[in-house]
Amino acid sequence: MTEKTYDVVAIGNAIVDVMSFADEAFIVRENMRKGTMQLIDRDRGETLYAAMGPATEVSGGSAANTLAGMSSLGAKTAFIGKVANDDLGRIFRHDLRAVGVTFDSVESTLEAGTGRCLIAVTPDGQRTMNTYLGAAGVLDESDIDAALISGAKIFYTEGYMWFNDDTKKAIRKGFEIAKAAGTKVAFSLSDAFCVEGNRDDFLALIDEHFDILFCNEAEACALYPGLSFEAVLDKLQGQCEIVAVTCSEKGSRILTRDQRITVAPLTVAKVVDTTGAGDLYAAGFMYGLTHGLTLEQSGHLGSACASEIITHLGARAQKPLTRLLAA
Amino acid sequence: MTEKTYDVVAIGNAIVDVMSFADEAFIVRENMRKGTMQLIDRDRGETLYAAMGPATEVSGGSAANTLAGMSSLGAKTAFIGKVANDDLGRIFRHDLRAVGVTFDSVESTLEAGTGRCLIAVTPDGQRTMNTYLGAAGVLDESDIDAALISGAKIFYTEGYMWFNDDTKKAIRKGFEIAKAAGTKVAFSLSDAFCVEGNRDDFLALIDEHFDILFCNEAEACALYPGLSFEAVLDKLQGQCEIVAVTCSEKGSRILTRDQRITVAPLTVAKVVDTTGAGDLYAAGFMYGLTHGLTLEQSGHLGSACASEIITHLGARAQKPLTRLLAA
Repeated sequence: MTEKTYDVVAIGNAIVDVMSFADEAFIVRENMRKGTMQLIDRDRGETLYAAMGPATEVSGGSAANTLAGMSSLGAKTAFIGKVANDDLGRIFRHDLRAVGVTFDSVESTLEAGTGRCLIAVTPDGQRTMNTYLGAAGVLDESDIDAALISGAKIFYTEGYMWFNDDTKKAIRKGFEIAKAAGTKVAFSLSDAFCVEGNRDDFLALIDEHFDILFCNEAEACALYPGLSFEAVLDKLQGQCEIVAVTCSEKGSRILTRDQRITVAPLTVAKVVDTTGAGDLYAAGFMYGLTHGLTLEQSGHLGSACASEIITHLGARAQKPLTRLLAA
Repeated sequence: MTEKTYDVVAIGNAIVDVMSFADEAFIVRENMRKGTMQLIDRDRGETLYAAMGPATEVSGGSAANTLAGMSSLGAKTAFIGKVANDDLGRIFRHDLRAVGVTFDSVESTLEAGTGRCLIAVTPDGQRTMNTYLGAAGVLDESDIDAALISGAKIFYTEGYMWFNDDTKKAIRKGFEIAKAAGTKVAFSLSDAFCVEGNRDDFLALIDEHFDILFCNEAEACALYPGLSFEAVLDKLQGQCEIVAVTCSEKGSRILTRDQRITVAPLTVAKVVDTTGAGDLYAAGFMYGLTHGLTLEQSGHLGSACASEIITHLGARAQKPLTRLLAA
């Protein structure tokens, strides 16, 4: 493997989160499935926004959150994604670059604005997401930067991208580029809904392409309906070099071909907003993998990053995460 | 006085705050005067934004923050201000309306985008503000809605508006409308810099127009250079019906023609960001004035609102303030 310029290069949805605290009744009234993500169209986006309370805007996007976290820890990262020429696009680009992520993808010139995710955060800190993809939804093969992907130790992407045929085709091209360049492929299953809608695809990709798989308990179980969590772990073990399964307040499980590691959870005094917990776990974990930490240390760093992000609104660290490296 | 539709109608700068935590070195390096507001042009805005860390966007604007706080408490309010037809303008309008503030001012059609305030928040929670007024800077007489102002118990505006002759003329027209309609006029001195640049104007307005004056210790002292704070209070007492002077962690002082009330401070466990503390004091205070509370109770409610806002990033309440009314 030749010297790599980046620790991780990722393709992801370029999204600004529009976050508002809401009560449980709002989730019911707006017909949302609590704790999940659903795609919405522009009209629904406008109706829902009008129904939402005052909001705070924070750059988001699952893979982008992961890169931002990694860069905040000191890793070298680059992002491939699509914004429009508007305020939200400038905000998204600024926030990635400001934390040190390389992000040079060209803007969309179509009418659709930069993608946004309307997030209702309930009093228990749970987030329910409604994503209008906008410009993020038009990423295609022309956006794939082969040199960038070849120059990375890990090429990472998110299950949330698995909605559009052109985008899937583009990402599959990325997998081939990675394979040819000796770049590991990492993937997040993102949401149980994504798994339900793409089960066969994801199972085939796990088999053929993924070296590192991130998921939570619900997403793992959605891959193999009807099996217990432990049986699902038996199925997953050995299918990729590394499978990291987050289990919220129960910590995480790391499976390699020949070992299983249980990472103890960290206690958090007050959970404000769980948005980005999984993304930041992946950030800490991949930072560890690319910086000589053991799998267990990488899992602990993932937990530390996730624990930090849920103490405030938004999935981007408000202060440098390097302080977590000393722990 | 005829029945009034609104408790408070305000004219203010329509601004979205772009907030980022920064260290003290950043303040020095960027040549800012810590704790103050300065106006910047578009080019400086872009350079400074590029130098800032990852940010969070929260609707702001001093008088708008005050109205948002009042509406969150349950008051009836309306805002007059100028946004552009862009994402930030839609965010600003949504956030005011979502909390119940009437805001029907027409958008600017000029090229300048919606105003934004680049705010560096240092580890001590102090905020240093750099405002690009954009569309907010072109408010003129055509934006003055006489029926709205006449229909309010209090017409409120901010010293931050005192930069542009057309805007000043518009607001002076508002003062005349208020006077004719039996609407009280309230004003915030906003910033010691605003006072220094407009001392004679402000002294004359205090004399002729203001019924209620809000300021902090530094702003009050900037009105009468060379005098001690107690001597300044002697000067101010009786010049308006009510003068409310906030003194940060020392609480506040309320002066009427014949009494002086000292409002004890509230202790805050952890100050995250002081942005909007004065604005929210004014919110609680004017809510009290328009809802039958005593001056002392109004001052306490102002302190409670200010104490809440400094526990999180941004000058808008993230959850309803009505819970403070029970205290």
